[in-house]
Amino acid sequence: MAHVFALIMAGGVGARFWPRSREKYPKQLLPIAGEGTLIQNTVARIDGIIEKKDTFVVTNRVQKPTIIKQLPSIPPNNILVEPIGRNTAPCIGLAALFIRRIDPEAVMIVLPADHIIQDVGEFHRLVSIGVQVASETKGLVTIGIQPDRPETGYGYIQMLEEPQEKNPYIDRRVYRVKTFAEKPNLQTAERFLESGDFVWNSGMFIWRIGTILEEIELHLPELHQQLQRIDAVLGTEKYMPVLENVYGVIRSISIDYGVMEKARQVYVIKGDFGWSDVGSWDEVYRIAEKDDQGNVILGNVIIKDVKNSIIQSNEEITGVIGVEDLIIINTDDALLVCKRGKSQDVKEIVDYLKRKKMNEFL
Amino acid sequence: MAHVFALIMAGGVGARFWPRSREKYPKQLLPIAGEGTLIQNTVARIDGIIEKKDTFVVTNRVQKPTIIKQLPSIPPNNILVEPIGRNTAPCIGLAALFIRRIDPEAVMIVLPADHIIQDVGEFHRLVSIGVQVASETKGLVTIGIQPDRPETGYGYIQMLEEPQEKNPYIDRRVYRVKTFAEKPNLQTAERFLESGDFVWNSGMFIWRIGTILEEIELHLPELHQQLQRIDAVLGTEKYMPVLENVYGVIRSISIDYGVMEKARQVYVIKGDFGWSDVGSWDEVYRIAEKDDQGNVILGNVIIKDVKNSIIQSNEEITGVIGVEDLIIINTDDALLVCKRGKSQDVKEIVDYLKRKKMNEFL
Repeated sequence: MAHVFALIMAGGVGARFWPRSREKYPKQLLPIAGEGTLIQNTVARIDGIIEKKDTFVVTNRVQKPTIIKQLPSIPPNNILVEPIGRNTAPCIGLAALFIRRIDPEAVMIVLPADHIIQDVGEFHRLVSIGVQVASETKGLVTIGIQPDRPETGYGYIQMLEEPQEKNPYIDRRVYRVKTFAEKPNLQTAERFLESGDFVWNSGMFIWRIGTILEEIELHLPELHQQLQRIDAVLGTEKYMPVLENVYGVIRSISIDYGVMEKARQVYVIKGDFGWSDVGSWDEVYRIAEKDDQGNVILGNVIIKDVKNSIIQSNEEITGVIGVEDLIIINTDDALLVCKRGKSQDVKEIVDYLKRKKMNEFL
Repeated sequence: MAHVFALIMAGGVGARFWPRSREKYPKQLLPIAGEGTLIQNTVARIDGIIEKKDTFVVTNRVQKPTIIKQLPSIPPNNILVEPIGRNTAPCIGLAALFIRRIDPEAVMIVLPADHIIQDVGEFHRLVSIGVQVASETKGLVTIGIQPDRPETGYGYIQMLEEPQEKNPYIDRRVYRVKTFAEKPNLQTAERFLESGDFVWNSGMFIWRIGTILEEIELHLPELHQQLQRIDAVLGTEKYMPVLENVYGVIRSISIDYGVMEKARQVYVIKGDFGWSDVGSWDEVYRIAEKDDQGNVILGNVIIKDVKNSIIQSNEEITGVIGVEDLIIINTDDALLVCKRGKSQDVKEIVDYLKRKKMNEFL
């Protein structure tokens, strides 16, 4: 069995969860959906399949202290800091360098820090299939999600239906990838859903360290070159200045666009385990357990004649009377009141605050 | 011309304006409707007709420091403190004792501290008519408000239509009172409105000091007796202990019920000057100036697709998206979100906080 490492990507800012999420407290560091923060739940979810000493987190300088506090079981040296966010390809490349030093034959699982998975048993089962495929082939493996609605907020992956002799993994719902599709419009999303051969791109990946570094070398040679500069000083006092310098010159690019769409041997495992990227307050409401009035209430809240609403309050008290279908998020210094179904517009509030340089509320 | 004094009654608690109004900051000490607090506006409104040295305020111990701050032009000795609220009759009797010491022939105008009046010129005109009637007769004069809707939240006064020879003031819309009516149900209120001979009881009164004290002696002999005890020690060091003692034994009674309904010579001036007792957030919305989306916005607020709503925020920021007909009042430690038309239920939130002894939010 391969030696398996995890990379948890925790660089996101999460403007869509304003006012709960802030620059210092992005979505993954918050208990958005019940107990535990999203990053704590991400670590808990791989308990038993990956050791804590083999779990890496990539984040930024601002979030690192909170992450160390929230994840006391992860060795602090495993929490890597990027000087600036450059999307997922540099992040994955950087972590791969660290893991290669420990075990060049290792398999690496890449997990966003801010997703929710309800059926952890099924998730484990798919991960072990993915590890097997990654170990036995030179393939890049991604986990796709069986769609249950024509969602326009996710990218899609088209699966290739092949006979067993061409794809020996197909009986375990591991498909070769035909194509990656960007976030579609509603009409296209409906077509994808109907066709049955599209899954959502979850942003979770499994591959051997050697495989991903070779694919980066092949498809992103500039990044490869810069990663080599970092590799040469890993563990020395020159590491930080070189890292700063590298992140100053490399371009921002996602692993999907930079590598996955170009690589020759890409697999997708079709998963169905109650996944959500909890991308908005509406999505939090959708997946949360409701009371018999359809409400999701957290904290110091008094309600009268309230239906189908999500209400969160901290130490402040929140009184709500005679409303329905509302999102009410009351924090120490900022409040959101939003009609359910409109939470994508929260980003506009954040943009406004940025334009007006009201940084204390960001 | 009579020497005219004002008594501003500022003892109210104002649970209906939670979370803006609190035990320490009741409605009259807040800028509920635009610039200036209600009590500041009440003082400003009699500017030019009553001197500051002739203006008295009756309040309680908790509110006194704030009132001194909010009304720097009123001599602090004119701000009288009741040990406990006993409704309007004792409050008026107490102030009358102080005024009688200065000028026993004075006329006294009684004004609640928490009303709004839009047409100050018309208000002044009616006050001077009232002062004339009070000076020339032994009557108690009250100011009634021409109703414009079948309001069930106010008491009503029925006017007596008499020929000029029986009531020489009737050409100036000064009527003798036929009867006082308690807050009616909707059907009765509609009948009152239709009949045309009912006005709202505004709680504003004008009378000679001698007249009101004689009427109290006649109709509330127990209160008269206790007021005499206070009068005997006025200006001495025994004042405070006697006052405490008196307020411990007298019963709570309104001047309307205790005196006005029983007195023989009561006049009501029919007024129409944009009066409101601003009794609820719905009423604040009703009287406020709206923007072209029907919104009334105060403070640090960002809106998108919001209509017909009243939104107040302090230093915190409030973002509101895609709602209509809401009352949103965001204070440092408490938030109200309420459907417009439901603001009478705010009292239930306050009652709940009391029951749960959550005193920090009261």
